[in-house]
Amino acid sequence: MTPSSVQRATPAEAATVAKLLHDFNTECDTESPGIPVLTERLTAMLATDRTLAYLGGDPARGVALLTSRPNVWYATPVWLLDDLYVEPEVRGEGIGGALIERILADASAARVAAVEILVDAPDVDAQRFYERHGFHGVEPVTGERAYYYALELS
Amino acid sequence: MTPSSVQRATPAEAATVAKLLHDFNTECDTESPGIPVLTERLTAMLATDRTLAYLGGDPARGVALLTSRPNVWYATPVWLLDDLYVEPEVRGEGIGGALIERILADASAARVAAVEILVDAPDVDAQRFYERHGFHGVEPVTGERAYYYALELS
Repeated sequence: MTPSSVQRATPAEAATVAKLLHDFNTECDTESPGIPVLTERLTAMLATDRTLAYLGGDPARGVALLTSRPNVWYATPVWLLDDLYVEPEVRGEGIGGALIERILADASAARVAAVEILVDAPDVDAQRFYERHGFHGVEPVTGERAYYYALELS
Repeated sequence: MTPSSVQRATPAEAATVAKLLHDFNTECDTESPGIPVLTERLTAMLATDRTLAYLGGDPARGVALLTSRPNVWYATPVWLLDDLYVEPEVRGEGIGGALIERILADASAARVAAVEILVDAPDVDAQRFYERHGFHGVEPVTGERAYYYALELS
């Protein structure tokens, strides 16, 4: 396995992306709709320019899923990193870093204005990981954090 | 003025949305590209189903701007509330609440899975406002906050 091997996933790789995302939620004790449902959703999502997925490792042991969206404050799109996961057995081997570096390189090439991510407050390892890759958890001028709020509708 | 008067903005109202968003950033000492540029961007953005804007008050004194995006964990879209602003002179008159209630009603009608927003950590008034309208700043099961991280590319 080459940790630095990262590929952009096509709709044909939806099942591989789905399996890794399902493993992610299973590991975190978070509900998952299951691999077949995720595969069906990802097959549709990856056929558009609104969703991007990357696979890391060969065979794939890590995944990143992003949404591209317009933002009125920027001339070019913003990417939101919805999920980043590396299988526990191969953690620390550089797959996560290779995924992030590839995402940032592709974002720069696509003239993306910013890459955003939400990180759980207690997950200081993830916070350090993103800070190492240049992300800021506090607004550079004000030094203030921003909190994520959500309301789920049923 | 009727505070409860809220309308979904069409591309023809882009200049009105732009003026309020520009006022928002001016009040917060945040850089704005200016009303003409914002109007041009919003005219294009509001012609798609990816961006939604609402105007509150008649004439409009408040604005909300949202992005609709797919999320693999849900069968239906997620709305991200990028900006919510009410002019200081009419704050406390219910325009913000009317905007949020209309957004949540439209989101329910459109079978939106969740509405998300980022709130600055020191802005406890905004946090209380969203909590009053049913938003959670901590994950209901774990009780944990999530922090916003970003990397701006140039």
